Amino acid sequence: MAKMKAAILGSSGMIGQRFAYMLNMHPYFDVIAHCASDRSSGKTLSEVWKLSDIGLPQDLAEVKIQGTDAKALAREGVQVVFGGLPSDVAGPIEDECAEEGMAVYSNAASHRMEPDTPILVPEINPDHLASIETQKRRRRKGGYIVTNANCSITGLALGLKPLVDAYRFTDVSVATYQALSGAGYPGVPSIDILGNVLPFIKSEEEKMNAEGRKILGGYSNGRFVDSPITIEASCARVNVRDGHLEAVFIKSDDMPDEKKIARTLAEFKSRPQELELPTAPVAPIIVRTERDRPQPLLDAGAGEPDRAGGMAISVGRIRASKDTLRFYLLVHNTIRGGAGGSVLNAELAYKEGLI
Amino acid sequence: MAKMKAAILGSSGMIGQRFAYMLNMHPYFDVIAHCASDRSSGKTLSEVWKLSDIGLPQDLAEVKIQGTDAKALAREGVQVVFGGLPSDVAGPIEDECAEEGMAVYSNAASHRMEPDTPILVPEINPDHLASIETQKRRRRKGGYIVTNANCSITGLALGLKPLVDAYRFTDVSVATYQALSGAGYPGVPSIDILGNVLPFIKSEEEKMNAEGRKILGGYSNGRFVDSPITIEASCARVNVRDGHLEAVFIKSDDMPDEKKIARTLAEFKSRPQELELPTAPVAPIIVRTERDRPQPLLDAGAGEPDRAGGMAISVGRIRASKDTLRFYLLVHNTIRGGAGGSVLNAELAYKEGLI
Amino acid sequence: MAKMKAAILGSSGMIGQRFAYMLNMHPYFDVIAHCASDRSSGKTLSEVWKLSDIGLPQDLAEVKIQGTDAKALAREGVQVVFGGLPSDVAGPIEDECAEEGMAVYSNAASHRMEPDTPILVPEINPDHLASIETQKRRRRKGGYIVTNANCSITGLALGLKPLVDAYRFTDVSVATYQALSGAGYPGVPSIDILGNVLPFIKSEEEKMNAEGRKILGGYSNGRFVDSPITIEASCARVNVRDGHLEAVFIKSDDMPDEKKIARTLAEFKSRPQELELPTAPVAPIIVRTERDRPQPLLDAGAGEPDRAGGMAISVGRIRASKDTLRFYLLVHNTIRGGAGGSVLNAELAYKEGLI
Amino acid sequence: MAKMKAAILGSSGMIGQRFAYMLNMHPYFDVIAHCASDRSSGKTLSEVWKLSDIGLPQDLAEVKIQGTDAKALAREGVQVVFGGLPSDVAGPIEDECAEEGMAVYSNAASHRMEPDTPILVPEINPDHLASIETQKRRRRKGGYIVTNANCSITGLALGLKPLVDAYRFTDVSVATYQALSGAGYPGVPSIDILGNVLPFIKSEEEKMNAEGRKILGGYSNGRFVDSPITIEASCARVNVRDGHLEAVFIKSDDMPDEKKIARTLAEFKSRPQELELPTAPVAPIIVRTERDRPQPLLDAGAGEPDRAGGMAISVGRIRASKDTLRFYLLVHNTIRGGAGGSVLNAELAYKEGLI
Repeated sequence: MAKMKAAILGSSGMIGQRFAYMLNMHPYFDVIAHCASDRSSGKTLSEVWKLSDIGLPQDLAEVKIQGTDAKALAREGVQVVFGGLPSDVAGPIEDECAEEGMAVYSNAASHRMEPDTPILVPEINPDHLASIETQKRRRRKGGYIVTNANCSITGLALGLKPLVDAYRFTDVSVATYQALSGAGYPGVPSIDILGNVLPFIKSEEEKMNAEGRKILGGYSNGRFVDSPITIEASCARVNVRDGHLEAVFIKSDDMPDEKKIARTLAEFKSRPQELELPTAPVAPIIVRTERDRPQPLLDAGAGEPDRAGGMAISVGRIRASKDTLRFYLLVHNTIRGGAGGSVLNAELAYKEGLI
Repeated sequence: MAKMKAAILGSSGMIGQRFAYMLNMHPYFDVIAHCASDRSSGKTLSEVWKLSDIGLPQDLAEVKIQGTDAKALAREGVQVVFGGLPSDVAGPIEDECAEEGMAVYSNAASHRMEPDTPILVPEINPDHLASIETQKRRRRKGGYIVTNANCSITGLALGLKPLVDAYRFTDVSVATYQALSGAGYPGVPSIDILGNVLPFIKSEEEKMNAEGRKILGGYSNGRFVDSPITIEASCARVNVRDGHLEAVFIKSDDMPDEKKIARTLAEFKSRPQELELPTAPVAPIIVRTERDRPQPLLDAGAGEPDRAGGMAISVGRIRASKDTLRFYLLVHNTIRGGAGGSVLNAELAYKEGLI
Repeated sequence: MAKMKAAILGSSGMIGQRFAYMLNMHPYFDVIAHCASDRSSGKTLSEVWKLSDIGLPQDLAEVKIQGTDAKALAREGVQVVFGGLPSDVAGPIEDECAEEGMAVYSNAASHRMEPDTPILVPEINPDHLASIETQKRRRRKGGYIVTNANCSITGLALGLKPLVDAYRFTDVSVATYQALSGAGYPGVPSIDILGNVLPFIKSEEEKMNAEGRKILGGYSNGRFVDSPITIEASCARVNVRDGHLEAVFIKSDDMPDEKKIARTLAEFKSRPQELELPTAPVAPIIVRTERDRPQPLLDAGAGEPDRAGGMAISVGRIRASKDTLRFYLLVHNTIRGGAGGSVLNAELAYKEGLI
Repeated sequence: MAKMKAAILGSSGMIGQRFAYMLNMHPYFDVIAHCASDRSSGKTLSEVWKLSDIGLPQDLAEVKIQGTDAKALAREGVQVVFGGLPSDVAGPIEDECAEEGMAVYSNAASHRMEPDTPILVPEINPDHLASIETQKRRRRKGGYIVTNANCSITGLALGLKPLVDAYRFTDVSVATYQALSGAGYPGVPSIDILGNVLPFIKSEEEKMNAEGRKILGGYSNGRFVDSPITIEASCARVNVRDGHLEAVFIKSDDMPDEKKIARTLAEFKSRPQELELPTAPVAPIIVRTERDRPQPLLDAGAGEPDRAGGMAISVGRIRASKDTLRFYLLVHNTIRGGAGGSVLNAELAYKEGLI
């Protein structure tokens, strides 16, 4: 099967570069355009590379970044666009690409809450993909936008999915310990975070609740139906490079025991695993039994699939009392909670014949 | 009034040195002995000083550390002992001091859960001091032990006290972001915590619940009666020097609004403020209204009393939904949650005529 | 003696705020205007306070920041201006203030290398103040500009001064470990420096040599004469809040022994000490004999004068071989190497009758 | 060719684990014993794994650690021992292994300065291997010890080798920025290094000079002859995980220009490259031309050979004045400056028929 022509938006930023890394030699997609703002246009990827945990693949070093022009991409035959732009600029550009008939897989928040745009997490709500039919109809040339979720809620929603299905939990509180890479570049000034914790991340707590309810909810009769779940979040930034850690508290009058919960989490598999999507982790939730894990430094990149680690989440320190379940959950914020989320989304759509 | 002769145990450690700093030129107590293990005995305070935020007071620089010998302290006329030893060695030494007739004000966990030993937080349970009468009776020479609480629960219990009184809250969850100084010296290896979060602190979560229930409970008929409160904690270490930050979640079917809660917290005063104890903060709870406070770096030392900052806690980001109250709380773990707690305890006892 | 009316430029930044702190209740100067760009104009100092090691003095909390307007300052009777603006904008504004007849004491690099503008370090080159007479003549209303040196060279030049005088050293190499605060705000992105060292600081190495030669040189016949010294610097940024540490190497064929060098450094006193200027440290160079000092965290704020610590430099680990002298030197980059430098400069000029 | 049976000493520590990683599936050596102290004996490698940058290879996870017993290793047929023990305990154990006839490749300092033990860096002094003949004669069963150099001097000596050969440099000063992993585990307390630099590392500066002179010197008539070079070092610890950065200053009356120096460094190849040893980097010195490199975070693992990155050093910011050459040099302290150094040593000996 011939590969589909793809483009990346935001190639000078950390999400765009994760896309470049994960899509290099991808079996379905062939990236023919790395786009960024005019300021970076003309530079090579090696000149703008910002990721410190992975090196720029040799064969991408001399690839030139081009300006961002939806019409030009359409002319070049691009069918799939991976959106790594910051949310404050992504909206109109992604819309243009969709209007030009391209399938946009976006990491930006801009379109997430729209009534015919899915926030897709393939293990949770593959059925939400159906919403793109509505979207295609309103766009001139059959393009559409599919978003991945906010980094923090991606991890939490994944961890909640099997629990919610098995035990009908609806009352969730969560305190986060979020990594610097979640703030983009230049992001947090070093002098603010050295030896400190910043107990505020703009709009994050609201997103966690709103997106979580949409993702864990249903899609029927052409409409998204919110889940009854409530997610009360308190979000803080810590001096960590990658990996959002989350302290989760769930209340229930009918609390199963710890072992049962651990099993429910560990055994969870879903559509991406069935379809053996190239970027799908073998098990989306890794349950750790050590007394002091998961840790961002050691575990954020867990779950080695074909493409890269960081696609599985880790859960540890599961403790259940009569009415409260506590655990720590870790998600790689720029992989599963960022670029990797959209790559997996596109793989699902590809395999389902929707691109 | 003549000052009482006092001794400090654990003078080579961080808590012992906080004691030294806070008791220097104290109006009630005159420290005549700085004690530590034989390894440090004979050294000067300047040779072992470990605190980086405050310098060793000039007049203490040449003070010699002596070995730890309860009988010798008794012979020197020491009436009050401030215990800054680690919990794994404090127990028997503090007992010996009490047996020799001294009043021991201890930061160690060793005796906290004993049935006639109070965990005293003067703003919360000054009445618990009555328990020392029972203790005095069982000890040969009328000595006794009063403990301050674990660093994390000290801050949380202070913040809960006015809320529990006003609104009968009983369902509390908390995720902590705890500072390095809480682990003593040498404490956490740098290579474990650089760019990382460690989601486990030994016995901390159990202590928070057990001590919290005792502190917020009553004392009647010679017995401590636990509070009905439940504190479900998830404790983590972050790369911060001083100041434990806590994300607090409280459930209630009858939730007051945010303004009312803020007022309840801000207006809280208690016995130490009435008595104008030298180390008492003017207001024990500082309510912050900025969107990103309190922060350990900026706010841990807040609440400047006569002796030192760090005796007030800070609360910020108060958010109340229909059934869930969220806020961030910050306590200086080695001042209010450590040495300062015991200094205030001793001041209360002194003023109440119990030393 | 009536105090002189003073203004601060750059009050929303870290240097401007150091000025505010050090000049609060100053015996010579009365700050009547805190100026910043229009963006901050109208805000209170408490709204923009960025320093984490010192709190905003109570009586400054509600002080309003005003826009930066030289003519308005002149109308308000301002005689002395303390310049805390970044070098890329300071030049013209400082010039305007000088043209309006004010004495400008500036931390910016803009005017440092001008032929009639001194880079003043009062312990080193108080005679350079004479150059302002030339400057006054070319300015319409008798104003002038005096600069303090770059943060790194301020410390190094202070340490070199007594050695150069005593031993005629001319061959200096230095590697720096520079603090984050030296980069201003927002400064270095946290994601670049976490667990890293950045071995480059723009123009810093060139400044160290050029400014060092001017400062340690002479002033005669209305001209600055460079010192024959050469300073070969390699400058790096480390993840430290305040305090530039410098590893100094000096070559000489006639090397005195370590004790003699230590004595030469420790005994050094100069004009500010003679005049007992309010901000002058008792000894400008503190010689440490421990095996692992000075350390930025512990020693940057050393040398407590009346106004604030951080005005003395610290030198330690002095090792002399046959032809090479090695030591570590530490300077507080925003106090002695920043705002404090200019405050001391202004105090010298005031006392010498030159303001 | 059959692989040689190998053992690793110190498998619970960071160097021992680097050995395990680098020797896994090695073409020459087959590790049949992972040894540590009795405290770790019986544990699996996965229970003691400390490296955060690389995961434990799947096939090693369940490997059991055994006690350290030279006679037992000899009985099991071990021919080569890789020594990853701390220097304070390594000495006698390594001696025992050599006495039992094994070839010991050691990272410890214990034997480095002995008159018939080489400090081998294969690109610099492959001829020093001849010294093992002397050693074999004095040991009962033909065993011997070969050491790799201290981590800091390994990198520096590699960078100096081509320069010393080409330009006869002898006057070197160096300031180091050393990583935490160099201090082993638990190593530096986090509370000492957070936001700080520690300007002292025990014995490091002496080792750099003494070992450097031996490594860069000759071996003739059965004796090591020191190089005339002098290395004046000032060593400091910074808050970095892996990678020692060094600011190098070289004095010479006959200084070549920067381009020539860069070429001399970049073109350097030696015996390991000729022999294409499995762990040899293609080029041992990578010259970087960016203005702000090398950086520990980005470049410590550079020089990807077959086995692992971190075997090449990086040099950048080359600046030559009339008489002073400055550059920054970076070496991965636990790979090229640790375990990898000894692996390369053993590979050289194997290929030269000396094991």
